[in-house]
Amino acid sequence: MKIIQGGITAPKGFLANGISAGIKRSGKPDLGLILSEVKANTAAVFTKNSIKAAPLVVSMKHIKSGLGRAVLVNSGNANCYTGRLGLQYAYKSTELAAQLLGIDPSEVLVTSTGIIGKQLPFNKIVDGLPALIKGLSPKSGRKFARAIMTTDLKLKEMAVEVVIAGQKVTIGACAKGSGMIEPNMATMLGFVTTDAAISLRMLKLALKEAVDRSFNSITVDGCMSTNDMVTIQANGEAHNKTISRKDQDFKKFVQALEWACIDLAKKIVHDGEGATKFLTIDVKGARNEAQAKQIAKAIANSALVKTAAFGSNPNWGRVGAAVGSLGYGQINEHNMKITFSPFDKKEIAIKVRLNLGSAHATVYTCDFSYEYVRINGEYN
Amino acid sequence: MKIIQGGITAPKGFLANGISAGIKRSGKPDLGLILSEVKANTAAVFTKNSIKAAPLVVSMKHIKSGLGRAVLVNSGNANCYTGRLGLQYAYKSTELAAQLLGIDPSEVLVTSTGIIGKQLPFNKIVDGLPALIKGLSPKSGRKFARAIMTTDLKLKEMAVEVVIAGQKVTIGACAKGSGMIEPNMATMLGFVTTDAAISLRMLKLALKEAVDRSFNSITVDGCMSTNDMVTIQANGEAHNKTISRKDQDFKKFVQALEWACIDLAKKIVHDGEGATKFLTIDVKGARNEAQAKQIAKAIANSALVKTAAFGSNPNWGRVGAAVGSLGYGQINEHNMKITFSPFDKKEIAIKVRLNLGSAHATVYTCDFSYEYVRINGEYN
Repeated sequence: MKIIQGGITAPKGFLANGISAGIKRSGKPDLGLILSEVKANTAAVFTKNSIKAAPLVVSMKHIKSGLGRAVLVNSGNANCYTGRLGLQYAYKSTELAAQLLGIDPSEVLVTSTGIIGKQLPFNKIVDGLPALIKGLSPKSGRKFARAIMTTDLKLKEMAVEVVIAGQKVTIGACAKGSGMIEPNMATMLGFVTTDAAISLRMLKLALKEAVDRSFNSITVDGCMSTNDMVTIQANGEAHNKTISRKDQDFKKFVQALEWACIDLAKKIVHDGEGATKFLTIDVKGARNEAQAKQIAKAIANSALVKTAAFGSNPNWGRVGAAVGSLGYGQINEHNMKITFSPFDKKEIAIKVRLNLGSAHATVYTCDFSYEYVRINGEYN
Repeated sequence: MKIIQGGITAPKGFLANGISAGIKRSGKPDLGLILSEVKANTAAVFTKNSIKAAPLVVSMKHIKSGLGRAVLVNSGNANCYTGRLGLQYAYKSTELAAQLLGIDPSEVLVTSTGIIGKQLPFNKIVDGLPALIKGLSPKSGRKFARAIMTTDLKLKEMAVEVVIAGQKVTIGACAKGSGMIEPNMATMLGFVTTDAAISLRMLKLALKEAVDRSFNSITVDGCMSTNDMVTIQANGEAHNKTISRKDQDFKKFVQALEWACIDLAKKIVHDGEGATKFLTIDVKGARNEAQAKQIAKAIANSALVKTAAFGSNPNWGRVGAAVGSLGYGQINEHNMKITFSPFDKKEIAIKVRLNLGSAHATVYTCDFSYEYVRINGEYN
């Protein structure tokens, strides 16, 4: 397994592009497309927020077949709280893209990120689509990665190579997210492509495992977006022996996928709004992985722990109280051990050792700074 | 029902005192005692944090009988994470106080607030107790209220009179709390006294209802302390017809108790660390009260909502996302109405109307400011 240059167009058979369609007032890139040259097994995970943006409703419908070709994304407008018209626009954008690409609308996923509660300027998408599609190229993964950025300070992409049953397989990925989005919330989007041949069932399983340990293991402010989504397209162009069960090949694939996703998830935290420190919360000795993660997240989302990190004040009492606040009767001061790495560094590790079982989880977060309050309080 | 001057010594038959015992380095008052002249029905609610400070362990044991005389409190040290020795000290302090008062140790409740993880300077309590007890007076409720303060900027006490079955009954109360405590967390303590004659069963019920709608309906930073506790002592000295069932008299008593508790709870929020605004979150049309409160709390604890309030930026998208993050499938943008009072005022009302039922709940909170980050990040 090794890291290689590039992002979503690193695997064979993927084209991408990103352009400025005028959705953002700044004129920065705001419309992107990924296209697999052949039909690809496609899986995705969506926000658990009961209020879902319009394009997610469309994508959740289109992904049911498990086969697709394209993913269309705009930034600058989240198409959320936009009523029936917003939903119509989301459907129409997939129809229009499909028509221009000569494929079926159900083969197109769509998502949006940016301001919520404002109607999507659909005409900009209509006007932009022909140029977007015309410029599709196996070298333009980075253009796509740039077009999905909102308050992100840095572009986030990554690619990794892994040998599966003697065959080189590539995974490419990009992501956006940095806390909350102009003037709204922590939308996190991730796009993964791979030329691996893998059954849909195994692809779904792999994505779930990797996302649980990466994008679902980070938190900037504990707020859940209405637009979060991670997609994976596997087009089989590497022509490896198809991964179709939980064997060594599957394990290797998941490992590589996890590596890519954790790398991007960490980049999102590093880019967290106002972040001055990177915190790794490591919980060991829990009854099960869900409990370990719940505890790690309670620590990561504690305003007291986050401000203590900002102030470089190691305070295990705050960590202990965050754990205790979950109300597990078996956890008390006598059977919990809390250790810190030096708190005056940029990267801080908080380790909690329980005495309940052997499960563990790691969660990544950043501190809470004046700048976080400024960014989110004083936007206009 | 009317508000009267005074606090915990306003009802008949209660004495109190507060002194400087030297637990706080500042020399400010830090040891307080409430004494009922006769045995009083006594009830209390405790933090749900699974990590409980030593004195709470003792109080939970002593309260089992439901009858008591005294409540002993120190500030400046929370006696939490202090191991077996801390627990011994907590027991011993009740024994010592009982001995000096000529009562049984089980008739003494005890609690502490302040720094956690440092051993209680027990000798200061031993040395201070005689003077504390000697100075007990029916006029010194305020001295007690002062002795329980930590980072509180303002003393919080209140008393209310209500006529029950032709008889004047008085309820007195004081509280402390303002976010988190030097250098630790949001400990909230409340002490209520009343000369009402009320059965233990009805007293417990009344306290639970009042606390649910007051101290349990406020949040400063979503963090739960290891030391939270609210006590009520009812000594029957008003000689009203004993309240022993859910009748009109009980209703009147609960109303008055709720009034006193909500008043103090609001004072705690107003005194919230770094608070510049007071937010009232009102959720109507929920399936049941628990759901209404859960939703109101999710909004009140959202870092995005709190920073938006600080920046005077009304942002219903953030409120909607906080509601949606709870994952209720029935709640979406179409059946939820969010309204705001003007956001540039000191007091802000956020109203959410759901369409699921007829239950409602109100939660009080404050904004998230630079000052909050400073207080909790830069203490030393």
